[in-house]
Parts: sequence; C-alpha cells; structure tokens
Amino acid sequence: MTDIASSDHTRQSTSSTPDRRAAPAMHPAQPRSTVAFNDGGTLPQSSTITSPFWKKYRTLIHDEVLPYQWAVMNDDMDPDMPDDPAGNQQDTHNSHAIRNLRIAAGEQTGHHAGFPFQDTDAYKWLEAAAYTLEYRHDPDLKTIADNLVDLIATAQEPDGYLDTLFQIEMPGHRLKRLQQSHELYSMGHYIEAAVAYHHATGNATALRVATDMADYIDSHFGEAPNKIHGADGHPEIEFALTRLYETTGERRYLDLAHYLLNVRGVDPLFYQRQNEEDGIASDPMQSLPLTYCQAAEPIADQATADGHAVRVVYLCAGMARVAALTGDSTLLDACHRFWNDIVNRRMFITGGIGSTQKGESFTYDYDLPNDTMYGETCAAVGMAFFARAMLSIDLDGSYGDVLEKELFNGALAGMSLDGKHFFYVNPLEADPEASRGNPGRAHVLTRRAEWFGCACCPSNIARLIASVNRYLYTVTSRHGRDVIAAHQFISNDTRFPNGVGIAMTSELPWGGHVRFAIDNPEHASFLFAVRIPGWSARRYSLSVDGRRFDGRPERGFVYVPIEGGNATISLDLDMRVSMMRASSRVRADIGKLAVQRGPIVFCAEQCDNDAPLWLYSIGSESETHYEFRPDLLIGLGTVTVSARKRVLDHDSSPLYRMAEPEDGQTPVDAKLVMVPYFAWANRDEGRMQVWQESRS
Amino acid sequence: MTDIASSDHTRQSTSSTPDRRAAPAMHPAQPRSTVAFNDGGTLPQSSTITSPFWKKYRTLIHDEVLPYQWAVMNDDMDPDMPDDPAGNQQDTHNSHAIRNLRIAAGEQTGHHAGFPFQDTDAYKWLEAAAYTLEYRHDPDLKTIADNLVDLIATAQEPDGYLDTLFQIEMPGHRLKRLQQSHELYSMGHYIEAAVAYHHATGNATALRVATDMADYIDSHFGEAPNKIHGADGHPEIEFALTRLYETTGERRYLDLAHYLLNVRGVDPLFYQRQNEEDGIASDPMQSLPLTYCQAAEPIADQATADGHAVRVVYLCAGMARVAALTGDSTLLDACHRFWNDIVNRRMFITGGIGSTQKGESFTYDYDLPNDTMYGETCAAVGMAFFARAMLSIDLDGSYGDVLEKELFNGALAGMSLDGKHFFYVNPLEADPEASRGNPGRAHVLTRRAEWFGCACCPSNIARLIASVNRYLYTVTSRHGRDVIAAHQFISNDTRFPNGVGIAMTSELPWGGHVRFAIDNPEHASFLFAVRIPGWSARRYSLSVDGRRFDGRPERGFVYVPIEGGNATISLDLDMRVSMMRASSRVRADIGKLAVQRGPIVFCAEQCDNDAPLWLYSIGSESETHYEFRPDLLIGLGTVTVSARKRVLDHDSSPLYRMAEPEDGQTPVDAKLVMVPYFAWANRDEGRMQVWQESRS
Repeated sequence: MTDIASSDHTRQSTSSTPDRRAAPAMHPAQPRSTVAFNDGGTLPQSSTITSPFWKKYRTLIHDEVLPYQWAVMNDDMDPDMPDDPAGNQQDTHNSHAIRNLRIAAGEQTGHHAGFPFQDTDAYKWLEAAAYTLEYRHDPDLKTIADNLVDLIATAQEPDGYLDTLFQIEMPGHRLKRLQQSHELYSMGHYIEAAVAYHHATGNATALRVATDMADYIDSHFGEAPNKIHGADGHPEIEFALTRLYETTGERRYLDLAHYLLNVRGVDPLFYQRQNEEDGIASDPMQSLPLTYCQAAEPIADQATADGHAVRVVYLCAGMARVAALTGDSTLLDACHRFWNDIVNRRMFITGGIGSTQKGESFTYDYDLPNDTMYGETCAAVGMAFFARAMLSIDLDGSYGDVLEKELFNGALAGMSLDGKHFFYVNPLEADPEASRGNPGRAHVLTRRAEWFGCACCPSNIARLIASVNRYLYTVTSRHGRDVIAAHQFISNDTRFPNGVGIAMTSELPWGGHVRFAIDNPEHASFLFAVRIPGWSARRYSLSVDGRRFDGRPERGFVYVPIEGGNATISLDLDMRVSMMRASSRVRADIGKLAVQRGPIVFCAEQCDNDAPLWLYSIGSESETHYEFRPDLLIGLGTVTVSARKRVLDHDSSPLYRMAEPEDGQTPVDAKLVMVPYFAWANRDEGRMQVWQESRS
Repeated sequence: MTDIASSDHTRQSTSSTPDRRAAPAMHPAQPRSTVAFNDGGTLPQSSTITSPFWKKYRTLIHDEVLPYQWAVMNDDMDPDMPDDPAGNQQDTHNSHAIRNLRIAAGEQTGHHAGFPFQDTDAYKWLEAAAYTLEYRHDPDLKTIADNLVDLIATAQEPDGYLDTLFQIEMPGHRLKRLQQSHELYSMGHYIEAAVAYHHATGNATALRVATDMADYIDSHFGEAPNKIHGADGHPEIEFALTRLYETTGERRYLDLAHYLLNVRGVDPLFYQRQNEEDGIASDPMQSLPLTYCQAAEPIADQATADGHAVRVVYLCAGMARVAALTGDSTLLDACHRFWNDIVNRRMFITGGIGSTQKGESFTYDYDLPNDTMYGETCAAVGMAFFARAMLSIDLDGSYGDVLEKELFNGALAGMSLDGKHFFYVNPLEADPEASRGNPGRAHVLTRRAEWFGCACCPSNIARLIASVNRYLYTVTSRHGRDVIAAHQFISNDTRFPNGVGIAMTSELPWGGHVRFAIDNPEHASFLFAVRIPGWSARRYSLSVDGRRFDGRPERGFVYVPIEGGNATISLDLDMRVSMMRASSRVRADIGKLAVQRGPIVFCAEQCDNDAPLWLYSIGSESETHYEFRPDLLIGLGTVTVSARKRVLDHDSSPLYRMAEPEDGQTPVDAKLVMVPYFAWANRDEGRMQVWQESRS
C-alpha cells in the first residue's frame, strides 16, 4: 500500500446503509468510499483501454456477452435449441438463476433449479456488468443491473444470509453441509460483484447487501466456541472479503478471511462430521478426497497444489491478498509454494491448469497430457487473479509472464470470437472423432457450447475481459521510492493517483513496439518499472526519451527513474517466432515443439492443413513466416512453418509393419499453417494441435 | 470337417443320462462320444506339449494356478491380505463362487455374493482343470473336480436352469432381464467346461448337466411365438452350444446357437421392454449404449467391431463356429468384417484390444492410446478363440499370426510368472505415478493383482494355457486333399486321426529353428501346410528331407505333399530384431518404434533402465543385441538397443523454454534394455513402455 494508491484521487463513497428494501431501481452514481479503493494494489485511478485488440473483446462483452448471458439467466433462450452432442458438459440454455432469486425473494413460487451455486451466474454477470459500465455508458444496462441488485436485496434474508437453494429448499440446513453447499462461495461472488458495482455506480444497496452478508458470515464463523470452525468446500469468500475490506476499511472482514484460511484443513473430519450431523448419507462430493477441496491438512502443511484446480487458484488469490494485507508469512510461503508447483510443474504452455477431468483437478508433477487434460476456463481466470495478487506482493516478472499467458491464451480461449460460445475445457490437442468416439476424451468439446448446465466459465471470462484495465499496472514501492510498474502491454490511457498520466501504445499481441508517453505534471519522483517478458529476455531494446537505456532487468523489471514533467519510453520486444520445448520431465511433450510468438501460443487447425496434424513435423530451426491476416476472423496473426509431412498410410495397409527406409514413407516438404490458440474452433470443426512432432 | 477329423481314432462316449443326483464323487474315465470330437477342426487326437517354455507355464497352471484359484473360490484366502491400492479393479481375495453354488444346492444358507456371473469362476476353473488333467495325472485334482461337478449338478434346477444369483435371490426373474443377467453367459461357460471335462475324464454327469441346460435354453428361446426372441447381453452361449453340438451331435444345439446369433439386435427395444416389464427402473448396464452388447442392430448390419471388446470376440468366436458348421455366409461375412476391423484398425501391437476403460470397449478406428487403453486379458484370450475358429474356416496365415501374437504377448501378459498374480488391464505404457496420480489412468495396474472382484481374467488365461495343445494344428482339406496345417510353433508330439504322428521341435520363442519329424506309418497322402509367420515372410528357409523346398507361400502357408512313411521338414525363421512402426493413421504411435523379435514384442522397464523411459530414442537402423538370459526370471530373451538418451531436465528448470541447439540438451549414447512384454511387471514395480521414441 503506497501513498500513491491512497491519494485523494480515490473516488469517494458514503458507507451509509439506506433501508435495504427501499433502494431505487435506478439512481445516479453515488460518491465513493473514503477508504482507498486499492483493489490489490493494482487499480490506478482510471485506466482506459485503447488497444484495438482488447477493445474488440470488450465491445463484445457489452454488445453480445452481457445481453446473451442475461437472456440465459432469465430463461429467455429458445427451449428448442439443440444440445451439443459431444461432451459431458451439457449445453443447456437456461440458467434459472433469476428465477431462483425471484422465488427466494417471494416474487414467485417454485423450486430451485440448477446447481447449488446457481446464484453465482447472476453475481458474476453483475460483476462483469459493473466493469463494463466503467467503459461504456449504458443507462439501460445500469437499470437492469440496479434492478438485479434490488432483487438480490429482496431475496436476502433479514440476517444477511443469501443462498437461494437453501432458502427455497432446505432452510433448516444452512451452513450445515459446507463441503458441498457452496454457500460462502456464492456469497463471496456476490461480494465481489457488489464491490465492483458499488465502485462503478456508487450503488449503496449493492454494498450494503454485501456487508450484511459478510456480517452474517462473521457472526457464524470464527474462533469462538459457539461458531463454526471450518471453511467452505470451495474457496472464494476469502478473496472476496479482502476486496470488501479494501472497499469499506472494515478490518473484521480481513480478519474473517484470515480466519477462514487458517481454519482450512485443521480438522480433517470437519466435513464428515457436518455431513453426518446433517444426515447426509452419501453425496458425490463425499467420494472425492479432501485434497479435492484443499482440506486434508492445514494450508501450511500442503506441499503441492492438489485437487480441484479452480479451488486451488481461488484459494491462492485469497491467500495472496490476505498475506499482503496482514504480512502472514505462512500464507505467503504457501503462495510461493503453490505458485512454483503450478507454474514450474503443472501448467500447460497455454496457461491451462488441471490435468484431469475427474474432479477437474491437478494430478501430479509434470503430468500434462494434451488430449485428456481439463484446463478449465475458470482455472485460467483464477490463475490470472493469483498472478495479479502476487504482483502486488512481489514485483517479479514471472507473475507478469503468467498473467499475460492467461490473458492471451489460456483464459481468452474460453470464449468464441462472437462472444456467444464458450469452452469449459481447453485442450491442447483435440479431435472431434476422439471426443465422439473415446469416452476418456468426451469432456473435450471441439466447438464452443452455447451454455453449460454448470455455467461458471462464461461469466468468469466475461468479468476478466471487462476488467482487464485493472490488470495492467502495479503500484508499489522499492527502497522507499514509489514505483509504477507496467507489466501488461495492452494499450491504455491511465491517470495515477499521484497525478501521473501514462498513454501506453502497444502493438501487442501482433507487433513488438510499446511506447509509454508519461505525463508528470506534478513532477512526481518515482520509478517506472517496465516488465521485460520472459519470451523477450534475450533480445529487447529500451529507450528513454530517445536514448538507449542500459539498466539491466532485476527479476524481470527494468526500473527507469522519472523526475521531469514528461518522458517517453520506448520498448521493442522480440517478436521472432520461437520454437518452444517442454522440460524433458514432461512425458506428453517429449520430442515435440510448440510455436510461440510474443505472448501468443499458436496451434494448427485442420481447416488450414490438409492432413492429420500429427503427420507434420517441425524442427527447432524450421523456417517460419509470420503474417497478419486482417481478413481472418477478427484479424489474426498467423505463422506458417516449413514442415515435413509423413505419408498417410492407406487404410488397407497393415496396422503394423517393419520400419524401413525403403518403405515409401519418406516425409515430404510441406507448410504447417498455425493460428493463435485463443482463436481456435472459430471456423470449421476439426482437429487442433498445439504441440507438433519434432523431426530432430 | 474332413475325413481325418472324424476317423475312428476319436474317443468314444455314451450319451446315456444317469440319475443326475447319483453321480459318484469319483469314478473311472468313461468311454467317449461316438460323435467326432472335432473342437473346431483344431483338435487332433492327442497333442503333448514338449516346449520347455510352455511346459513351465502349464506346470504353473497345475501346481500354482489351479490350487490358488480353488482356494479363492472357496473363500480360503487370508481375509487380512491387503488390497492393492492402485486401480479400480479391486484386489479381492474371495470369490464366493463355491459358496453360491452350495446355497443354490441347498447345502447351506445365505445370500448370493459377487457379480451376476460369479458362477463362471467355478466353471472356467473346471474347464482349466479338465485340460490340465489331460496332461497331468492327478487323482486328487480329479476328485475335487468330480465333486464340483456333483455340486453343480445338485445346484441345477430340475428343469435344467442354473444361475445361483437368480436361484438364490430372484427366482421369479429368470430370463427376464437378459441385458444384464448373464444367465446364458454363465450357463455357456458351464457347457464349455462340461464338454472339456467330459472329454478329459468321461464324466457323464458333467455332460448331462450341460445338455439339460441347453435343453432348458432351447425350450425358452426360438422362433415360436411363446418363446423369447432375444439374446443374452453377453455372448458366450453361442460358442458353447457349438462345442456341445460337436460333442453330442445334437443338431438342436447348433440350431439354437444359430438362432441366438440371428435374433441379436433385430429388436433394438428388446432389452428395454424386458427391463420395463421386469420392473427395473435403472441399472448401470442400461446407461451403456446397445452397441456395448452388439445389440443395436442385427449382426448383418453391424459395420464395425463396437462395444465391449470381450463381448465382441466371444460373439465372433460363436459366429465363426456356427458359420463353419452351417455355411451361413451372412455370419461369415460378419466374421471377416469384424476381423478386419479389429486386426487392421483396432488392435494394439501386442494383440491387446479395447481402447477405453469406459465399458471396456473398442472406440474408433486407429484410436490406440498406449497409456489409457484397456486391453483386457479376457479380450486377448477371446481373440485367440476367434483366430482359431477362423483358421478352421479358412487357412490363412494372418489368423495364425494373430493367434500367435495373443499366445506370446497380449494374453500371456495377463498372468505373472508365479501364476498367482493377474492383470485385467494390459497397457502398452505404464507408470505407477500415473496410475496413482491421474484418475484417467487409475484402471492401469502396475503390478498384477492377486485377485479381482470381477475375476473373469485369471481363469480365462488359465484355460487358454492349459489347452494350448489345441491351438497348434488345423486339420482341413484343399482341392480334395487332406491337409494338416501347423500354424503354431510350440514343440509337441501329436498323433492325428489318420495315423500320422508329428514330433515338432521348435526353438520358439527364443530361436528360429523348427523341425517337424513326420511319421506316416499308414502312408497316408496329405498336404502338410506350414505357416510362414508374417514377421518372417521376408526371410525363411524350408527344407524337406534335407532338400530346400521351393514352394511359395499361399496366403501364409507353404504346402508340402506327404506321401511316404517318414519326412523331416525343417523351417528356419527370421529371428532378427525388427523395428516396427504403426500405420501413420495411429496418432498415438506417430514417430515411435516398437521392438519385436520373432513373435515376441519387447518392452522397456524401469528396473533395467536408469532414466524415464521416454528419454530414450531409437532408430530403425539402431544396433541391437539379443541375448537369452537363463538367470532372468524363468529364463528370458532380452534385446539391448543402441539408443540416444535425452538429458533429464533439472526439476528447477523452467517448464517451457526455447528449443535451441546450444541448450545443453544434446542426447547422449545409451543402451535401452528390453524384455518380452509378457514378462513385464514381474520384478520391481516401475514404468514400462512398448513404443519408444524414434530419433529419425
């Protein structure tokens, strides 16, 4: 927390709590909290995205994603729409989330529908809408969102509790089956949405519902003997409470988050006892090991990142924020331990995490199967949260590298270029025939679905894209000096609390030139830190006001002292195509190469290449040709690699034969056309492959 | 059916039916049936295995496997024996099969335990015991087996029905839920056992129980309106009935088998209607598609070999025998269609079949994943049945090649060299860490289990090994001439019905010299057909009485006319180590090589090689060194391949990096030590790999 972040440029808000039932459906923006809205140290005063690439996506969020998802949540989609035949993530088209809230609010009758956490469809939509309203003036959207806040407020119980499943179906079972209930998870998502919506619009009801929720949780969880000594089966509330603390300044919320982290796994029998006491004989969740929800042992004792990948990274994001805000070194150690385990041993080159469909989980170190993997969109989004939170603790370029990897690859691939189709699973190798024909690969869809029965991913990618302006800078200090660190090269105009304005123009992801025009009207003295991406560490050039700057990177950042009224910093990054290899400990990638250029990982798709993709082999020295093709979908950079192509054996040929030089199988020269991984499956359905055979 | 096969050398037996309850516990061998015991055209009069390799296995069957399995069936195993922690095939130690039969026989009370087909544990044991008694005089074993027959006879209902689950638990539901009941499957296994036991010992009770069963089935299934117009969910009875027909000469049994094949899949709603009428709301079987049990459409319309692999090959064995005995060309076409689909597109190089654990099933053409595959032992055994049956229809070397592949690889790997541990799943690549750590590979055990809850495999491999003397020759005719075809090179002494004696001495699987000393005292005129294995087709030499024989192979067989009183035929096969490759349509094997020598497929094991196996790469021209190591386990041939070994990256190295020539990753020269696939997992638990990276 630096002086910069808490300067008087921070927006103001009252923390008054008006009559919770009387919040108007629409009202003018309110002044913001007097407490610094720090948002993990990463949110400057205002950041406007000017990147054409990201503006397209953010326009999609406003124009397509939010209306589409709103219709889904209101069950307005065509009920006759055909389901996607492939995969076990059913392509349902109605969320029932609003209906559940209406029933809980007493506005209609009926039963709860959907998953226990169905409420979060609405909350994450609200959060995405909040961010969108910060860059797009839309009174209609605001009216809808205000009305949603009012509905949520009406659905909330007088004591602050809100979970429509339990309210509608099992009011006597509140907080009694935390292993599977997702109650705190759901309320956590509401709190995140409320903080964002309050920040965007000043809506006081939104924030008051959140504080009432947090107060309810605080009154039921804690060290006191009469409280619950366990945590939700799905982490999320911890991170949410840090945001609520940062917005309201209410220390109890931070302490509560801290408690919920510390109690996790301390009593490994907690869930079993709860379930027994609540009369749950068997539940699918109970068949999963406690590692699934990181509750087999205290966090301090958890050596590796195990279990459900989304849970792990949501937990890590919460841990990192609590560690940053409390200085708890045990939590910080856990953050570093899990980070290293994930990033160095359990992450796909796209940033995807989760190596198995079973439990949507991590498996073991270096187990990274490209075709049976999971790589859930939500896990990639959560990894971005984790990376951003770590940047606020420790300015290390590797966090920025991973954040960038998620933004341009693993997370972004979760949404189609039309904003209306989504991947839950993000494989590195796909084959429609395999998804249809081999049950072990049925979870891998080869075209994005319109919706999911478990619809966590579509709204998660929406809220990430809508808030990408919050992922660009970290404001911190170094040796007593203020630091503004630019770690993501997404063009933007930003005004910082210390009065500094930065206009960043970046050619990324297609070009390597980045220019920072720094306007420093108050002649603030600070260090401007520029991340040198890992993929460009070998070759880059940095100049300040036209003169080469020779500062060496320290842990991935070059620090440029800024004193004067203006400065122009130019960074040229290495945009050569790179052939990447995995550690030889990764069995799945042995003898294979991946193609990367800048932050973008490329893949081959069947629609660009006329043979099974596994017939092509490339070498580390293969000639490559990069071309930006404005005609291709939204305009995409493509890479063509000089490859060798094996002969496709005739289907009447023997299945096995002696390998002989003279068997007519000499590969021929060929071209392998590759597109950015995030853009795959936006044309004809077909095979896709990130890792190519290496011919060396 | 040639004259040779039905000559008067065939054993005699009465077909009288003594009082079924009065069969003595032990009695002298009875004379055999007057009908030719043809056994699919493959059983000559008597064949004594002299192969040291197979004698070891057959001694194991007698000395270890049968006593061990008998103890398991009688629930005599140590109840405290620890279960194998890996895998979903539980390592249980008590079968309950005998107890179930005793309860059904009224000799004790209690509930049925185990799977619906638990009876078959006892039946397949009995069948293995029968074959064993043909090569090992053991009055104690015979007493046990006779007593078992008596128990089975007592358990049988007066109307011939026998299925302990239904008798004990649901007598009113007989034949009413054929999709999942396994009633005809179980009775089929009894019939096979009875035919074998009757042949071996003359036990008339055994055969009478079988004919009573078949009569019961015949009275309930058939075209008459009051009969059942559907087939068992698991094929087996069809093949069994052909054996009963061949033993008894009762045409009704063949017609019944034919009917059960013809009715299969004709009414796709048959099972659903049965289940509804019998009040079964849901059953795990019902969630599987009808293709799982080859009942989605009539066999004539089934284009590919789909569903549960064991069901497919059991069905095929039955079809092939019925086609041979009836001349039904529709069934024969289906045999050829399924054979080609399996052998040319869906079979692992070891002979393993079944590409997915889900439904233990085939998937789609060329989908042959080495690490997530199934390759059930029973499916390999069933494939041997199918191959043998096809040889009796059509003397084509490819059937002999596949039969040999199963005998020396896919099937044989199912049992440990101590005869007391078994694989249900036979992967081509295994890693204990993966089996423990990745749920998608948990079905792959990396050490053989002591038993299984579903224990179909141990007794299946036992009955195959115990009867391997029935898999050596096919007696047939060609252009009006008698043919004795030698298609398996397993040393043996055999006397044929036409008086011809053959002493085959073969060095296989370790050496390539095979010698046939033919004794023809009656100067019979016939063609002696010798299979030239596919793996030796490019190089072999054949001599007759010391003179090179120049006859070219016709569809894999060389035909040598025999007229005189004696002949000596020498065959020298190509025992060079071969580097094998798969069709380039097989994604999983692209850029990989397998090592084969003679019929034996080799694999690398962790205990012989000091680095992760995927670090080694070999080339099609790599130097190889074969060595027979008498000290290794039962004495094994090993192959050492000159390989290149990649550097194992340090675990602190980056997970992904640019591939560069100068990154210190140049592979070094190394040796890759390989052992026969069938012998893997008999030493320290560790990684195993059949397909090696190719460096070309």
